[in-house]
Amino acid sequence: MSKLTSTDWSLAARPVGMPKLSDFASREVDVADPKDGEIQVVNTWMSVDPYMRGRMYDRESYVPPFQIGETLQGGAVGRVTASAHPDFKTGDLVNSMLGWRTAWVAAPQAAMVQKLPNIGLPESAYLGVAGMPGLTAYAGLLRVGELKEGDTVFVSGAAGAVGSTVVQIAKIKGCTVIGTAGGKEKCDVVKSLGADHVIDYKEAGGFDGLVAALKSAAPKGIDVYFDNVGGDHLSAAIEAARPMARFALCGMIAQYNETGKPTGPHNIIQAVGKQLKLQGFIVSSHADMTPAFHADMAKWIASGKMKYEETVMNGIEKAPAAFLGLFTGANTGKMLVKLG
Amino acid sequence: MSKLTSTDWSLAARPVGMPKLSDFASREVDVADPKDGEIQVVNTWMSVDPYMRGRMYDRESYVPPFQIGETLQGGAVGRVTASAHPDFKTGDLVNSMLGWRTAWVAAPQAAMVQKLPNIGLPESAYLGVAGMPGLTAYAGLLRVGELKEGDTVFVSGAAGAVGSTVVQIAKIKGCTVIGTAGGKEKCDVVKSLGADHVIDYKEAGGFDGLVAALKSAAPKGIDVYFDNVGGDHLSAAIEAARPMARFALCGMIAQYNETGKPTGPHNIIQAVGKQLKLQGFIVSSHADMTPAFHADMAKWIASGKMKYEETVMNGIEKAPAAFLGLFTGANTGKMLVKLG
Repeated sequence: MSKLTSTDWSLAARPVGMPKLSDFASREVDVADPKDGEIQVVNTWMSVDPYMRGRMYDRESYVPPFQIGETLQGGAVGRVTASAHPDFKTGDLVNSMLGWRTAWVAAPQAAMVQKLPNIGLPESAYLGVAGMPGLTAYAGLLRVGELKEGDTVFVSGAAGAVGSTVVQIAKIKGCTVIGTAGGKEKCDVVKSLGADHVIDYKEAGGFDGLVAALKSAAPKGIDVYFDNVGGDHLSAAIEAARPMARFALCGMIAQYNETGKPTGPHNIIQAVGKQLKLQGFIVSSHADMTPAFHADMAKWIASGKMKYEETVMNGIEKAPAAFLGLFTGANTGKMLVKLG
Repeated sequence: MSKLTSTDWSLAARPVGMPKLSDFASREVDVADPKDGEIQVVNTWMSVDPYMRGRMYDRESYVPPFQIGETLQGGAVGRVTASAHPDFKTGDLVNSMLGWRTAWVAAPQAAMVQKLPNIGLPESAYLGVAGMPGLTAYAGLLRVGELKEGDTVFVSGAAGAVGSTVVQIAKIKGCTVIGTAGGKEKCDVVKSLGADHVIDYKEAGGFDGLVAALKSAAPKGIDVYFDNVGGDHLSAAIEAARPMARFALCGMIAQYNETGKPTGPHNIIQAVGKQLKLQGFIVSSHADMTPAFHADMAKWIASGKMKYEETVMNGIEKAPAAFLGLFTGANTGKMLVKLG
């Protein structure tokens, strides 16, 4: 077996505010043959996601912070190149949390490895519509948001990987859907996914504009809000919520890079009188839904009801640029880095 | 039958900011004999509650706003003095929403009348520990807060009618309890109810002080927050929350009389990573728990596990002053007006 090396990315420095390319550093590392219970994998795709920004702060969170000089982590798909584990063989397609590198050797449990089923999907889909962002949309809408047929659903960041799946699942479930996105191009994407109303938040211009647009789109108010951005979107959703509305708090990208004290929803008091439920969630707590999710997603994609877009950057050297692009609106749909 | 009259209170003007006595006006009205399906009642006690402030604004809410010149409403206990309804007879004790007056005639359904059971409680208790505030504590902790034995529970406004019941139910359920109140006297009350830690919020002095006090009292964080006050308390609870903590949002008295734009919880983003559930509720949505609540409450009071305090003002003419007193800390426990 010839010697395998990997290009690995780590933090060179903790980003302050908006991350920049110089906050990242790459190096070549040797990848050993698998020891007993391990597998060796060459990644073919890796994912960049907004939540990774949170792990770049040195603070207590639900996942430990990235350490300076340690290889970053994230979703990746790859092929097994050597196996010393009874459940895996060379050629198996696997999902893992060992992204930000081109190859690795590890015990499957330690790397959160899942063997991927053969349901006719391209490899990259497992990092998007049929992967973590897809399951995030699915669990957030159906379980956290307690979606019911006929609900009016509001989703922010509707052109993103999670948001675009939220729009389509809600439509499949017979709901009225209002989505926000920034700029005409992204709004057209959201419209093409089947959203009933699309709000360009850059045109709406803050809280008052968002509220006016929501009240016009949904005069009776909204039943479910799927929050990807926080900030004014969250306050506007509170303002437009019907009694007993459910908010699935998935991410607050508007706040990820703020260095000052962010402002919270000034109208949170309405949560009492309207009996709103605002519930944060992370996808790993809903991994038990994966089999139902995979089955539904395969069915919806086969029938043409579920579409997905990807923005692909080529080569491991583009990984930091792809990540930075998440915060400047460079992507439509899932942002991916193609490695294989 | 001699002619019955009632002293009724209404709004003379919509309060701006903190309500004042001149916002209220009283008048004498005749109370007719009951027509078919109606009952005539002389109130013996009436309740004043912070939520009433919300109905004084002219805005859409879960209950319609009070109208200028129309008799105010609120919880009251009284005795039936004449009945033309088959389910009620003279002398029955009833609970209704026709407070802010000394007597009334109405159909029981229209006035949300409940006949009260004879379980050995004084009449006033039905407006407090065994009434709406008690059920608010019970439903908020057990259903909305999903209380589990061994949880660490934080409750603000712990010396109030709802808060003092929250403290005791949580202790009965085997939890560690942290309560806040303003000033030494109220803190002593909370301590006497069995709270493990009492924080004087006036001494703590805002967000940073509250967080420090909470982290000292609960180094591992809190599992349930019962919010009666909002503002810094809510932000501090988010900061001190453990993953999967549940927030029962019951009231935000800190904001009821604000005229400027209130500030929301600046750290709401933590709800995502910690997977917090923040859920507003109003007691009437949990009326189905009343039988279990009455049974538990009778048992707990009989066994000495549940104590309650009342602040009583005498006479219908004191109703507005009693209401205003809620916002200046004039009460310990339930604020009541004795009419009978």
